[in-house]
Amino acid sequence: MRDANPVVVLGIDPGTAVTGYGIVRKEGRNPPSLVECGVIRTKPRDELAQRLSEIHDGVAELIHRHRPSVLSIEDIFYARNVRTTVVLGHARGVILLAAAKAGLEIHEYPPAEIKKAVAGTGAATKLQIQFMVTRLLRLKSAPQPNDAADGVAAALAFAMMPDLPKIEPIRMRNAL
Amino acid sequence: MRDANPVVVLGIDPGTAVTGYGIVRKEGRNPPSLVECGVIRTKPRDELAQRLSEIHDGVAELIHRHRPSVLSIEDIFYARNVRTTVVLGHARGVILLAAAKAGLEIHEYPPAEIKKAVAGTGAATKLQIQFMVTRLLRLKSAPQPNDAADGVAAALAFAMMPDLPKIEPIRMRNAL
Repeated sequence: MRDANPVVVLGIDPGTAVTGYGIVRKEGRNPPSLVECGVIRTKPRDELAQRLSEIHDGVAELIHRHRPSVLSIEDIFYARNVRTTVVLGHARGVILLAAAKAGLEIHEYPPAEIKKAVAGTGAATKLQIQFMVTRLLRLKSAPQPNDAADGVAAALAFAMMPDLPKIEPIRMRNAL
Repeated sequence: MRDANPVVVLGIDPGTAVTGYGIVRKEGRNPPSLVECGVIRTKPRDELAQRLSEIHDGVAELIHRHRPSVLSIEDIFYARNVRTTVVLGHARGVILLAAAKAGLEIHEYPPAEIKKAVAGTGAATKLQIQFMVTRLLRLKSAPQPNDAADGVAAALAFAMMPDLPKIEPIRMRNAL
């Protein structure tokens, strides 16, 4: 799959309220390009099942529209609040389901690994991630809202990894 | 929904390896009857997404076949192992999705509440639950495996609740 050209990657930062996503296209040794990014929002006052249904359909629609071959998704993040983490598990469940049904290759990365792939360090801040996402994709400004940037970062984590270790610096326009 | 007759309830005890289910039919003031029970098993060596897909399809198939109007499911159980709980959240996610897509009314009960509804106490043991499930449904023997009995208990939790508080003892054959 890594040798296939071009590779379209759907990156997802899962959440029950806001699920960020980014579709990134990578062709050979060219730098990756952004196809689309955004967020799937659900209403906190809706039932969990209804919200899961909207997240699932949103992801399924993205897959249908862009035909990615890879889902790159944040691995489970153990929030201090266990309930938050468990509810997040529900959202991840329906996202993984949508990807499995569409036959996508699934890659799960711990948050620190995504940060490292995009910004060179697992301790990168939100701002650093936004900065690097913007530079790597030669955008005029950082994807908004932040959750969209996190989805893009997840996609980049997969798209960038085949090039590791990076010997040549990637050429970037002064985009910020 | 509670006044509709008969009510067909799909009860589920979610798990990633084994998801127990029970379909219970309740008509007016008659005691509930068991339509079907069993388990959906997934292979531990399969990818999580694949397993979630099988759980989802298994539940969707049950819904398609028995047309329940209610899903009664165990609320999140906080296992000592957080990872276990979170993975379980994924399974619950795809089960809730299947139910939401089919328009089922969803009821979530904490494990203790299910035990209380079925066996009169939230501290009931597995064996007591099996005994009461067998009696309440006038079965010759307890549903096997245990996870199936837990799925049936979840269905009974909904099916029995409208009758609370119980003033008259329910007539039961000496079935065990």
